Amino acid sequence: MDIAARRTANPDHWNLASAIRVLAMDAVEAANSGHPGMPMGMADVATVLFKNHLKFDASAPHWFDRDRFILSAGHGSMLIYALLYLTGYKQMTLEQIKNFRQLGAITAGHPEAEEVEGVETTTGPLGQGIANAVGFAMAEEAMRAEFGAEVCDHRTWVIAGDGCLMEGISHEAIGLAGHQQLGRLIVMWDNNDITIDGRVSLSDKTDQRKRFEAAGWRVLSCDGHDAADIDRALTEAKNSDGRPTLVDCKTIIGFGAPNKADSSKAHGSPLGADEITATRNAYGWVSGNFEIPDEILTAWREIGARGAAAHEGWKARVEQLAAKDEFIRRSENGVSPKLAPTIAAFKEQTLASKPKVATRKASENTLEVLNAEMPENFGGSADLTGSNNTKTGGMGIFSPENRMGRYIHYGIREHGMAAAMNGIWLHGGFRPYGGTFLTFTDYARGSMRLSALMGAPVVYVMTHDSIGLGEDGPTHQPVEHLAICRATPNTLTLRPADQIETAEAWEIALSQMHTPSVLALSRQNLPTLREEIGENLSAKGAYILREASSAPAVVLLASGSEVEIAVDARETLEADGVPTRVVSVPSMELFRQQDVSYRESVLPAGPARIAIEAAVRQPWDWLLMGERGAEAKSAFIGMEGFGRSGPAPELYKHFGITAEAVVTRAKSLA
Amino acid sequence: MDIAARRTANPDHWNLASAIRVLAMDAVEAANSGHPGMPMGMADVATVLFKNHLKFDASAPHWFDRDRFILSAGHGSMLIYALLYLTGYKQMTLEQIKNFRQLGAITAGHPEAEEVEGVETTTGPLGQGIANAVGFAMAEEAMRAEFGAEVCDHRTWVIAGDGCLMEGISHEAIGLAGHQQLGRLIVMWDNNDITIDGRVSLSDKTDQRKRFEAAGWRVLSCDGHDAADIDRALTEAKNSDGRPTLVDCKTIIGFGAPNKADSSKAHGSPLGADEITATRNAYGWVSGNFEIPDEILTAWREIGARGAAAHEGWKARVEQLAAKDEFIRRSENGVSPKLAPTIAAFKEQTLASKPKVATRKASENTLEVLNAEMPENFGGSADLTGSNNTKTGGMGIFSPENRMGRYIHYGIREHGMAAAMNGIWLHGGFRPYGGTFLTFTDYARGSMRLSALMGAPVVYVMTHDSIGLGEDGPTHQPVEHLAICRATPNTLTLRPADQIETAEAWEIALSQMHTPSVLALSRQNLPTLREEIGENLSAKGAYILREASSAPAVVLLASGSEVEIAVDARETLEADGVPTRVVSVPSMELFRQQDVSYRESVLPAGPARIAIEAAVRQPWDWLLMGERGAEAKSAFIGMEGFGRSGPAPELYKHFGITAEAVVTRAKSLA
Repeated sequence: MDIAARRTANPDHWNLASAIRVLAMDAVEAANSGHPGMPMGMADVATVLFKNHLKFDASAPHWFDRDRFILSAGHGSMLIYALLYLTGYKQMTLEQIKNFRQLGAITAGHPEAEEVEGVETTTGPLGQGIANAVGFAMAEEAMRAEFGAEVCDHRTWVIAGDGCLMEGISHEAIGLAGHQQLGRLIVMWDNNDITIDGRVSLSDKTDQRKRFEAAGWRVLSCDGHDAADIDRALTEAKNSDGRPTLVDCKTIIGFGAPNKADSSKAHGSPLGADEITATRNAYGWVSGNFEIPDEILTAWREIGARGAAAHEGWKARVEQLAAKDEFIRRSENGVSPKLAPTIAAFKEQTLASKPKVATRKASENTLEVLNAEMPENFGGSADLTGSNNTKTGGMGIFSPENRMGRYIHYGIREHGMAAAMNGIWLHGGFRPYGGTFLTFTDYARGSMRLSALMGAPVVYVMTHDSIGLGEDGPTHQPVEHLAICRATPNTLTLRPADQIETAEAWEIALSQMHTPSVLALSRQNLPTLREEIGENLSAKGAYILREASSAPAVVLLASGSEVEIAVDARETLEADGVPTRVVSVPSMELFRQQDVSYRESVLPAGPARIAIEAAVRQPWDWLLMGERGAEAKSAFIGMEGFGRSGPAPELYKHFGITAEAVVTRAKSLA
Repeated sequence: MDIAARRTANPDHWNLASAIRVLAMDAVEAANSGHPGMPMGMADVATVLFKNHLKFDASAPHWFDRDRFILSAGHGSMLIYALLYLTGYKQMTLEQIKNFRQLGAITAGHPEAEEVEGVETTTGPLGQGIANAVGFAMAEEAMRAEFGAEVCDHRTWVIAGDGCLMEGISHEAIGLAGHQQLGRLIVMWDNNDITIDGRVSLSDKTDQRKRFEAAGWRVLSCDGHDAADIDRALTEAKNSDGRPTLVDCKTIIGFGAPNKADSSKAHGSPLGADEITATRNAYGWVSGNFEIPDEILTAWREIGARGAAAHEGWKARVEQLAAKDEFIRRSENGVSPKLAPTIAAFKEQTLASKPKVATRKASENTLEVLNAEMPENFGGSADLTGSNNTKTGGMGIFSPENRMGRYIHYGIREHGMAAAMNGIWLHGGFRPYGGTFLTFTDYARGSMRLSALMGAPVVYVMTHDSIGLGEDGPTHQPVEHLAICRATPNTLTLRPADQIETAEAWEIALSQMHTPSVLALSRQNLPTLREEIGENLSAKGAYILREASSAPAVVLLASGSEVEIAVDARETLEADGVPTRVVSVPSMELFRQQDVSYRESVLPAGPARIAIEAAVRQPWDWLLMGERGAEAKSAFIGMEGFGRSGPAPELYKHFGITAEAVVTRAKSLA
């Protein structure tokens, strides 16, 4: 069917979908940057989804029982921005659309969950969304099992492109989803046969349908530009047979653009004024740039409001819920009131028994008492359960047969696990933690960075954290990974030295609302070194563990398994008449947050400093420099956190990386 | 068929395979650490492979035209160590086997290509071997196309386990292999249904056979303990129909261990003395620990020698080869004599034209002249060809139809690309380079670390290297990735400031024999800043780009796109009477290698220092500290490179991370 025939066959649908398409074209053109082709290609599918299937209420973006819509192909961000604007999400004004990709707007190049209501997860790095979705769907199953379908009864819908499906993470995600039989997970594949380099056939000939079937999925298909056919497929998709569903949506990238459709030219650049005019003509769209005719906007706004009644019904059911308060706390991801007292009691018990255990075992001991009190803890491991010590008594295994299980055998899927944990948190209801070896941070990096960027406080239980793992050798021995975690903005790297610090690390990690934690834990046994437990000293990042007998000549700094070495060295030094202080450094990030007076009280100018850690030096230099000294005559002009979407020159200015800033700083130092 | 029946059915085979099994059991038991189950399970398949199919000559591990045997399931390292010892590889003595996993032995926990002749690639992190193998097989196709089947005519054999196949990287690898129709790639799947956590069904129900077929593979199968059936399957596997082949080998982990076979108990721990005795009885094996009866060892040694004649024939054919010298240089991965003069001429031309181009474009310009002279350059991109600027004129696209093509469309497979590049280098014949965005270092980290650990000098062309990429936003803007690359041992991070430094960076990267390079390149245009070209100043790591008008009051340090900012700031400062030096820092690793007197000449004590880089500060602290100053009263005890395989306490001692070392250092500083 050609464009004209499609227009006349179903004009109501055509107008709704065209509104998305022209907004996408116009915004990309105005920004002179972006990806018009994908929103244009998937507008029909998205329109049918939002009009007839997606459970949502545009006036209540945080409604817990909404369906989740995830744009895994995040470069097509204008698709979701257009949908949010058209359906009436308050935050997404036309002004925001007009400022697409500009500094200060919420309409970033790739959709950012931390900025935009209605964006469920941050996407852009390909394959992340589909892998997050597995976590969303697992959390939904688990919350439904725990609190009942009256208050938790929704689906997870994903749009994924060829790029998402080529990335390795998609294999881990679909394998996990197939295994877990996540029947409420529906992936709509934007099967447009185009990648940046050209046709998919340039680099891939995978039979995706067969591949998904092999992973235990059901596969449906539709003409992605035929509203009735899309509606049929999505209706069938909701009628699950227990398996997750792939809907193969055959689409044309840049649909309707006379010269650029069905080619990579429509993918990642503005179409250009002439092509936009020609495309508008093909659509029969006569309104000006960014203008949506009233009747079309009204029709869209009605779609945005159609879930309001269901939302009200849900509110009433929540009121009736026996476990109402707990349900609300959980659905809002509130910190457990049990956390602090449980940790306090456990520390007391530890101080009394002074165990000599590996911190991975100390972590298990801590989790043993925490998990009994905190049903929101949702644990797992990427097939290293017995090594990561992540499973505690009575958790039960989460599976199709037991949705009350609180432990996930993620399989040998570190990246998939990390992405699923992000999804579990973002869905709400649970605090996910998951284990692997610290070295395999490498395999999970893509999703770990997104935990940090989105501010998802998931907990990475990374054991075997140094050469201390021994015989497995250098492929398994992390040396640069502490530096990697510490270099990543908004990430807490916690490397406890004994069971008391381990308990404190868990308290810190499970108190976070916007920051993920990496717990770096030893394979080898370590003695209990701490002698007081009143305060959570680990929360200061670094503290005096052993004071020198008199004014310190040397300060030894160490983390984790090397603190024992520092304490041993101090014994010798003190005996030899060298007054020596030992500073334990469980978290550099937290120490950096302390005020200067505290930092100087721990690390005074004067004494020599030696840092000890079985890893590379890079993160330690700032502690060896001291507050003053070298720093007083030096400065760094650069980044302290993640970047932003906007034109590059504005970004440099925004972050103060300019010749002017250098000049000012230099004059103050010279 | 039960064990006894198998023993008597084919006693010759049984004895050969049992020799592998008992060595694996004995070595793991002696080390009290390791993975006996996998070698025991795959001994039959490996025996048939080495006895009847693998083209190799144990006396010549580096014979270019050997078949490559890759143990992707690297934890089963005793399988390959046993095979190397039994077939008579000189380096692999019985002493080495007895010292399995001990410090100083070459028999590390996971097999290390850089240490052991006959180990083609370092494995252990799961899925890497199968993904390396794709590179090996592509390099073989390309060398055969270029130099002829008389001198290049071999296969790549892989043993992969369930873990390898669950990892995301396996998806990227098999998709690429299927697309490229690598008919000489044969993967033997150790289908034992066991992972560390338990049965595979605990976390996966993927139909692997269907999955491989969906990716364009041929699938065969065999009883992995029936020599005749294995032989039939491997014979068929060699008879390619153009597709790569998966051989589904149904095996039993820990084969023959009465109480631990077919369970995760056989996977990662010693079997224990009693179980070993029972297993020996089941095998009918009467020799003592580590003892191989003479007639069995002799039979194995004959297997090790059976390729000698083929090897001699090949040598004779090489002598006849018209392109003999070039073939030898290429097969030994020798540095091109064309490299230095081509770069010198290009720098001269650049100095004359002073282009203002992005360094990604400068990289393309450099490659344009290099690729014309260096047929060994084998380029590619993970679907960002037009953005990474990695393709130059006349390369041709490597495909089943054109094995002379020198450019690979890797698809959206960063991890698979990095692993394939490692394989291409390790195979020999080519210098691979591949592009993606610097942020997606995250996706390729697993293989990038192995490039460093193995010393494979592949080149990562990482463009869009800061917030300078602009509108794509924080998901695409690297901030921690320079720190990550710089923290990784044996990795050159090169961030050139203009086209001259870019050309120098390529010269450095393509001269390496044991170190991978990361070229961090800008999206945005940058002016030519360098004014002299005689020496490769980038090779010093940091150098004075602009001298102060008199004794410097301030030294500005910067890399890449921020050098322009430093130069601009210097103009203002000098005009305002502040004598300012600008130091360009293209590579911290190379600067660190210079002697102290050079370093101090560039960064003298006294002047203030300001570092400028649109990334996190972590790697800069050491340059801001200076050679003396804070450092004179501080020290760091930790790691400078990768670890080793051995018991943990010995490793701590080996790397000097001990209380004694701390005491000595402290006394010298206090």
